[in-house]
Amino acid sequence: MTTHAAPVEAFDIVIFGGTGDLALRKLLPALFHRYADGQIPAGSRVIGVARDALSDAEYRSRVRPAIEKDAGWSAESKLAADEFVDFVGYRALDATRAEGWAELAALLGSTGDRVRVFYLATGPDLFAGICGKLKEHGLNRGRVRVVIEKPIGKDARSAAAINDAVGQAFDEGQTFRIDHYLGKETVQNLTALRFANALFEPLWKAEHIDHVQITVAETIGVERRGPYYDTAGALRDMVQNHLLQLLCLVAMEPPSAFSADSIRDEKLKVLRALRPIDRANASQTTVRGQYRAGATDGRAVPGYLEELGKPDSRTDTFVALKAEVGNWRWSGVPFYLRTGKRLAERVSEIVVTFRAIPHSIFGDAAGPIAANRLVMRLQPDEGVKLWLMNKVPGPGGLRLRHVPLDMSFAEAFGGRHADAYERLLMDVVRGNPMLFMRRDEVEAAWAWVDPILAAWKGLEEAPKPYTAGSWGPSAAVALIERDGRTWHEDAH
Amino acid sequence: MTTHAAPVEAFDIVIFGGTGDLALRKLLPALFHRYADGQIPAGSRVIGVARDALSDAEYRSRVRPAIEKDAGWSAESKLAADEFVDFVGYRALDATRAEGWAELAALLGSTGDRVRVFYLATGPDLFAGICGKLKEHGLNRGRVRVVIEKPIGKDARSAAAINDAVGQAFDEGQTFRIDHYLGKETVQNLTALRFANALFEPLWKAEHIDHVQITVAETIGVERRGPYYDTAGALRDMVQNHLLQLLCLVAMEPPSAFSADSIRDEKLKVLRALRPIDRANASQTTVRGQYRAGATDGRAVPGYLEELGKPDSRTDTFVALKAEVGNWRWSGVPFYLRTGKRLAERVSEIVVTFRAIPHSIFGDAAGPIAANRLVMRLQPDEGVKLWLMNKVPGPGGLRLRHVPLDMSFAEAFGGRHADAYERLLMDVVRGNPMLFMRRDEVEAAWAWVDPILAAWKGLEEAPKPYTAGSWGPSAAVALIERDGRTWHEDAH
Repeated sequence: MTTHAAPVEAFDIVIFGGTGDLALRKLLPALFHRYADGQIPAGSRVIGVARDALSDAEYRSRVRPAIEKDAGWSAESKLAADEFVDFVGYRALDATRAEGWAELAALLGSTGDRVRVFYLATGPDLFAGICGKLKEHGLNRGRVRVVIEKPIGKDARSAAAINDAVGQAFDEGQTFRIDHYLGKETVQNLTALRFANALFEPLWKAEHIDHVQITVAETIGVERRGPYYDTAGALRDMVQNHLLQLLCLVAMEPPSAFSADSIRDEKLKVLRALRPIDRANASQTTVRGQYRAGATDGRAVPGYLEELGKPDSRTDTFVALKAEVGNWRWSGVPFYLRTGKRLAERVSEIVVTFRAIPHSIFGDAAGPIAANRLVMRLQPDEGVKLWLMNKVPGPGGLRLRHVPLDMSFAEAFGGRHADAYERLLMDVVRGNPMLFMRRDEVEAAWAWVDPILAAWKGLEEAPKPYTAGSWGPSAAVALIERDGRTWHEDAH
Repeated sequence: MTTHAAPVEAFDIVIFGGTGDLALRKLLPALFHRYADGQIPAGSRVIGVARDALSDAEYRSRVRPAIEKDAGWSAESKLAADEFVDFVGYRALDATRAEGWAELAALLGSTGDRVRVFYLATGPDLFAGICGKLKEHGLNRGRVRVVIEKPIGKDARSAAAINDAVGQAFDEGQTFRIDHYLGKETVQNLTALRFANALFEPLWKAEHIDHVQITVAETIGVERRGPYYDTAGALRDMVQNHLLQLLCLVAMEPPSAFSADSIRDEKLKVLRALRPIDRANASQTTVRGQYRAGATDGRAVPGYLEELGKPDSRTDTFVALKAEVGNWRWSGVPFYLRTGKRLAERVSEIVVTFRAIPHSIFGDAAGPIAANRLVMRLQPDEGVKLWLMNKVPGPGGLRLRHVPLDMSFAEAFGGRHADAYERLLMDVVRGNPMLFMRRDEVEAAWAWVDPILAAWKGLEEAPKPYTAGSWGPSAAVALIERDGRTWHEDAH
């Protein structure tokens, strides 16, 4: 089944950082797909903005291969691409200087009160300046939304500063803090599974769940992001946003309505209920690592320090930690989180492991009885699997086996699956902030992360080395094994 | 995966009614498949017994096409069939007369103390006589089991008489009352799903289950069984045994062990907890029907009375009823049962419908939210499906859809699936009575059925007519619809 989403009204989107990686690799292809699917009406405009002096035609000639690369290229999509590229324009503009803003305002003003989106696909150091200029030229008035990407700060204080600066020009309802993990189908479906079925929610608590694992593993190194990454590290770059957001969706109480603030209120409650990790317990509950030379995807790769060209960095390229949500539902249920670069496999998944059955009626001959697991995979392929014990068919004695039930519904629904950015961009146009982080969420996440950073700073030891292509330092294995549990590394 | 079951020891099986339909259509093919799979060792013997004067060779020439018809016929199976037929012998014997028994005893005695199975694939009127003769010739001694088929009586009194007569020759541990529904993979797997997974059992009660449906629908008419069937009817022929046994497996408390008596104790408790249906409530809780001429499988078929050649029968060829299990777990949860001949489709299934979610957080735009259902299908194809609400993928607003999860594991396990009789016959040889009905179960089932039969007898009205090829009388639809529920007739 192909799903044609209802069209949005015509809109203008201005992408700051329009020549950058995010714009060309993600945003423009996403807009193109929404256009090709009929969701974006003709007359909408996409305006790339960057410092480079480019003509519209020159910019289009960069956009064209970017969208072609992504599309499953048929005659129809070629035609759609020809049309789409016509909507794309370009304005050279230095966000730190005064020139060009009036012209941008004039250009946007020409379409009256249509929805305008400013997508700040730039470093966060430019957010304040751009928002100031937009305000100065009256571009924060009317039906306007601003989209900002991580990193939103490097601690609670700097995040508040960014939020304050953006807030000078845009109110909270206009501000869309994007976390593309929230736009993924599997993540969306987690909410549907939990709250549209009577089966899961009664079991969704400490009484029936043993523990939760959230893994976001990458095989790439820091690559061109080195200079930024070295000031951040895995905890700031991944845990503070993506992994904690996933944790919130697993752990939140049922909201009373499927509305932006109902859901964000519940997520906020989870963030505030996280048990603190600080100097007193950081050694027991966290492991940070840094990769050394090794091999990924069959080729030799350098270590982090070589890649960075800086011999003394203590930045974490891996972090594993054991979080706990201190409330009635989750008390005593560990949430094991881990993320890192140059790991063995590119995989993002949430694994909910249910408790073992209280008593086995089956004898030893039936074989071991594994605990039920719900595995929600976000990357590389999206899908949900439920592992159940089942009788092995046949006329012998009863034997049991753990079998994965495929709940990804790929067969049931078929068709091309939209990228997370497609959904999120359309949500921005529609003014639906449900899948975006509210200011208080971002700041609450930092409030939990800051003491961990402080504890690490206070420790003498450096991050534990791990070989590129491994699953991280052995201490990360010990972290979970000493609780009698194991990281889920099943290839199924 | 092909499952090779562990071999049993060499045994002798004597099939009374050896020329009959059950023997040739089910028992001999089942034994052949177990032989071809390596589970029955060479040297075992299969002895058909009937009144016809046949030589071994003549009997084998009837057996051969019967097993060929059933087998997926390869070179290997041809070879196996040649070998298997060599094990098959025949003895002409009139169960009501004295001749021939001594010879049978001598033949069986020749193999010392090996396991002997007497399968009584005859009418129940012969059970007492055969068992008497077996005892008379000492054939009830040693490692002996007797297998009896339904109908075990036509009411509690006649069932007790049969059980008493069989019990004169064989003790309860030697008596295997077969119900082939219990040998089906899906039925076996129900026990595995319930008790080897932590997911289902916490939900398996009135708090979370709305109702249960058990349907056994046939498209055939009474055919050659008319004279017997007219004395029985659907309630005796199907509900008293198959449907109540399925109900027991759904409703039973967790046994402490996967052992024959633990499980049969729990099933017995369910039968004894069934709320009585009698003259006071039979009109509200039961519907009986009788088919009229119509069309099934695309051809015109006569009505029951024409088929029977008897214009005034009031025998039920269809029954629907609403049962309740009066205990803490199930109080208030209806179990709707229905079975009939000449219905629209051949299908046997158990449908467990969970309660609706208590509150929907999703708006109307998400679409209706259907209750979760677990559908266990026994016929025509075995399989389990779990119906869940799932998000429809795509970048539009959140829409939900009911999607069946295939839990039949056909893909996971593959291979040929053994027929229920294969498993059950091997269980008889191994002396494992778990999947057979204990005397007290049979009699408790009759104790619940008898007052329904009495109530019907007391009612003036005849069975409600229904057209062959329909889903039974409209009163059966009304039975469930007036509770605000609907029969599950989903073709998926």
